Amino acid sequence: MALMFIPLAVLAQLLGLTAVALISTWLVKYLDGFAWDGSSKQFNLHPFLMVIGLIYFYGNAIIIYRIMAGLNVPRLAVKIAHFVLQLCAFICAIIALVAVFQFHNANNIANMYSMHSWAGISTVVMFGLQLLCGFLIFLFPKFPEHYRTLYMSSHVFFGVFILGLAGATVLMGIGEKLAFAGNYSELPKAAIIGNVAGVTCIGFICIIIFIVTNPNFKFQGYEHVNNL
Amino acid sequence: MALMFIPLAVLAQLLGLTAVALISTWLVKYLDGFAWDGSSKQFNLHPFLMVIGLIYFYGNAIIIYRIMAGLNVPRLAVKIAHFVLQLCAFICAIIALVAVFQFHNANNIANMYSMHSWAGISTVVMFGLQLLCGFLIFLFPKFPEHYRTLYMSSHVFFGVFILGLAGATVLMGIGEKLAFAGNYSELPKAAIIGNVAGVTCIGFICIIIFIVTNPNFKFQGYEHVNNL
Repeated sequence: MALMFIPLAVLAQLLGLTAVALISTWLVKYLDGFAWDGSSKQFNLHPFLMVIGLIYFYGNAIIIYRIMAGLNVPRLAVKIAHFVLQLCAFICAIIALVAVFQFHNANNIANMYSMHSWAGISTVVMFGLQLLCGFLIFLFPKFPEHYRTLYMSSHVFFGVFILGLAGATVLMGIGEKLAFAGNYSELPKAAIIGNVAGVTCIGFICIIIFIVTNPNFKFQGYEHVNNL
Repeated sequence: MALMFIPLAVLAQLLGLTAVALISTWLVKYLDGFAWDGSSKQFNLHPFLMVIGLIYFYGNAIIIYRIMAGLNVPRLAVKIAHFVLQLCAFICAIIALVAVFQFHNANNIANMYSMHSWAGISTVVMFGLQLLCGFLIFLFPKFPEHYRTLYMSSHVFFGVFILGLAGATVLMGIGEKLAFAGNYSELPKAAIIGNVAGVTCIGFICIIIFIVTNPNFKFQGYEHVNNL
């Protein structure tokens, strides 16, 4: 079973990069690309940065312990990489939020009315808290072992849950954007690419969660809380 | 930690029933209620049955081992209840699919164009396969222990993954329905109720997954594959 790790890790990368490529194609080829000018081009940065950050970077942050353990990278380096990838994801998410709020305000569009926005804000707040607690408890100042042990199961549970919620939010976001376009039911090329990007995100998240919840893929002792 | 089980199980029921009540209110009070006449009233059966079936029944099917173990119900009875609840969920999902396909066909609306529909069909197919494999391997004819052990981890993983995907699909569905209504950004009462129903579904799924993935809530030996 542990032999399945490398093919699954490679498949996860392929799916994640395909999702990013499809979202980019959708936004650049069919929705005018990117700019920071208050126009819909600024809006386009929102889905792009969210998929890169809260799906691809965050998914990789979750499985990086499994990948780097196999490569015998020192634990502290892995822990820092785990944190830095999540920090990059968080920065992407914040810029993505600023992009969409500024776009809405510049065009007199209401903020925070859709379920996508409600789920999205919840995701980013939970992700920020997860990152902060993880940093304080496991990295600096680093809490005593007793507290690290207590917190670990919540950190793992919410880590996976937040990825699932980020995925659901991305799917809602793509679906809403396509629904607002007006011709969704004719399934134009843009809608096919958006839909396939969403399905690819689902596949990526499925494999990330499969890898991280599968005890066969754990390297014995590598992630034990005493060693963190 | 195990003391938390009863409050969490009660909270799950409250959230699940609230989600069903909110979806019902949304559909009956703001979207004309139910009928089987090809009109939008027939469409309304789709979200209603999906939330009852693939969220509430299915979520309860997942945690029923934990609940009934605490009540000392015999294992075979729990296994049958686990299956029957999922069968009810599957029947709800099939009727919900027939309702929406017939509604689309009667009103010349395209089928299967949205990401909601793509994710939804994937969810129902995966759920059907999960139910079938679970029935054959664990219930009747019931495979030898070696095969049951081999299959168990996949059954558990996909059980939780399909619930997550069902949740994402329900959120996309509510979001799309509200987006198509045209006045979503003014956040009318109907949209608030739809949004809160979605958030309540997220809360229900979060607690179900927390309960089922938490080793402290397992009753020792009760769910071991040898006893199944």
